[in-house]
Amino acid sequence: MDERVREHAEVLVDWSARIESGDDVVVDVAEDAHELAVAVAEKLGEAGANVVTTYGSDEVLRAYLKGHDGDFGAGDHQLALIENADAYLRLGGGRNTTATADVSSDLRQAYSKANSEAREARMDTDWVSTVHPTRSLAQQAGMAYEEYQAFVYDAVLRDWETLAETMAEMKAILDEGSEVRIVKERDDQPPTDVTMSIEGRTAVNSAASVAYDSHNLPSGEVFTAPYATEGEVFFDVPMTINAQRVKDVHLTFEGGEVVDFAAEQGERELASILDTDEGARRLGELGIGMNRGIDRFTDNILFDEKMGDTVHLAVGRAYDSNLPEGETGNQSAVHVDMITNVSEDSYMAVDGEVVQRDGTFVFEEGFEE
Amino acid sequence: MDERVREHAEVLVDWSARIESGDDVVVDVAEDAHELAVAVAEKLGEAGANVVTTYGSDEVLRAYLKGHDGDFGAGDHQLALIENADAYLRLGGGRNTTATADVSSDLRQAYSKANSEAREARMDTDWVSTVHPTRSLAQQAGMAYEEYQAFVYDAVLRDWETLAETMAEMKAILDEGSEVRIVKERDDQPPTDVTMSIEGRTAVNSAASVAYDSHNLPSGEVFTAPYATEGEVFFDVPMTINAQRVKDVHLTFEGGEVVDFAAEQGERELASILDTDEGARRLGELGIGMNRGIDRFTDNILFDEKMGDTVHLAVGRAYDSNLPEGETGNQSAVHVDMITNVSEDSYMAVDGEVVQRDGTFVFEEGFEE
Repeated sequence: MDERVREHAEVLVDWSARIESGDDVVVDVAEDAHELAVAVAEKLGEAGANVVTTYGSDEVLRAYLKGHDGDFGAGDHQLALIENADAYLRLGGGRNTTATADVSSDLRQAYSKANSEAREARMDTDWVSTVHPTRSLAQQAGMAYEEYQAFVYDAVLRDWETLAETMAEMKAILDEGSEVRIVKERDDQPPTDVTMSIEGRTAVNSAASVAYDSHNLPSGEVFTAPYATEGEVFFDVPMTINAQRVKDVHLTFEGGEVVDFAAEQGERELASILDTDEGARRLGELGIGMNRGIDRFTDNILFDEKMGDTVHLAVGRAYDSNLPEGETGNQSAVHVDMITNVSEDSYMAVDGEVVQRDGTFVFEEGFEE
Repeated sequence: MDERVREHAEVLVDWSARIESGDDVVVDVAEDAHELAVAVAEKLGEAGANVVTTYGSDEVLRAYLKGHDGDFGAGDHQLALIENADAYLRLGGGRNTTATADVSSDLRQAYSKANSEAREARMDTDWVSTVHPTRSLAQQAGMAYEEYQAFVYDAVLRDWETLAETMAEMKAILDEGSEVRIVKERDDQPPTDVTMSIEGRTAVNSAASVAYDSHNLPSGEVFTAPYATEGEVFFDVPMTINAQRVKDVHLTFEGGEVVDFAAEQGERELASILDTDEGARRLGELGIGMNRGIDRFTDNILFDEKMGDTVHLAVGRAYDSNLPEGETGNQSAVHVDMITNVSEDSYMAVDGEVVQRDGTFVFEEGFEE
């Protein structure tokens, strides 16, 4: 076995999920994530955890959904499994990222609705989502297999403790600040100039560990839940949303809501997202990518939104971890991230003070106000 | 997809497990049983069942066991999953039948003991065990892959309703009878002449359906729980027990217990089984193979013991389904089947009347008393 697979498992079990002896752990294994599952199982054995492995196959799910009439039940056994689990480790890495492309959105939504209780219960565990580098994901990224493996392990096998310390500086700035402004002026694209309030909100130092309220491996972002957004943003990083290519999105905000939108590609999908419900036109997240191990976009949100020199905004649902205890933020059935590259001709200011220019942070060497 | 895979799934879901709308079903998928899992998922969708798929990987299990110190916990989440399930479908078919060969028997036993409650809970569901024909199983059978596929589907895709009617005749004979005697006299092997009591016991018509208390697909045997065994038996069908080859076993019974034993190969494994506990030297099962779709031995007990023209005896645990309500039969931690070929120079008599001679039953054409 590739030593990097073992190291990935070690980071996942020890740093990310913080598994301890006696923990009841569910490991969900995608079709081609077998090798990572073997490495994770060994680590979980060493930790003294109790393990149930589930099979997260998109092809099996597709067959089930297409066979079903759409009147889905909840599955007490599924709920009982999750409610009795301390941790849930999702090992992504299927054989075809578009394996469920021919399932109707009605069926998907009905299934998703029937499983909402189980999904919420999963969010109450120490859950972590990661991916094993597969040929299918390499293809989605437009990369050779070996090249993609190196890309994934560069992003995952980091010195998380040191990165967490750096990110803590950004979190402190956001926690103390009231207003964020992001400006980008490039000749080759529409201008970005947007302000949003973060008063009373708490930023999450997403250091790829449940100890930091962070549930993705890799991670490497600091995010909060903004509101009262005003201005316009151009998202120049293309992405795939619900199997649709979406490119060059332009959003205009007034009074916290999207009042105008356009996209070079996928505008219909964008419209459908914004029309989902009332909360879908408001922001749920402002995220600042800080993982410099990620050096390119690969059309996979798990990686793209964590990349250094990027900022992302999500329309839709806000995370409770950004809100004062007991309060809930923006509510929506969707949470769709969109990314803008801030490596040149751009800055981010908090309460009027520039904290990031052309990707470099105020607490980093080379920063120029 | 091979049409036979779909037919297999249909037999499993409709005939064997009798899945109904709203049933909570666990599908356990071995490493290479993916294709059958897809077909089963479609059938379960059509039936309106709620599905959790677990990943039954021997390689994942090996890694977990070898990582662990042996002080296993029980896993409340696993127990909760099973206790809330109506049915449990095991789709066997791994990549290597000896994938756990280097795990110590101490670790295995400790793990098995920690999971005994979950195992018992599984037995309380409508469970069915089947296999997807894989290259690994073809190799174990000494057959080409395509040849093995044909073999499996010949055994599985039967007219189960008609076979159930035929087997009901054998069940009636055993239910009315008090004593079974099996005799075989061949020049090339030690004699078999054994009698056992079946008074008060109920035979199971194992027609590959939970509706018949039958939990294997394929099945095709009638079995009961004998006692007070006297005499000697020679088992001429070789088999693999706990990854050990065991061949030409000879057992001598007195007062219901094995008092002498020998084996051409694997005698040490046999001794270890018989010494497990008190019940390991008594019989737990007499089974009569009646599936004529199985035409050869493949070193897989799921198939071998069901083959027409064979009779098998198991030392160890008896099944509750053979006993009057509330009574328990022979208790043991083991249940090891051993098979003898009765296609020639042999007969089986119930209360002195010959009911099978050289493989042909009294209710079949060509029977000669």
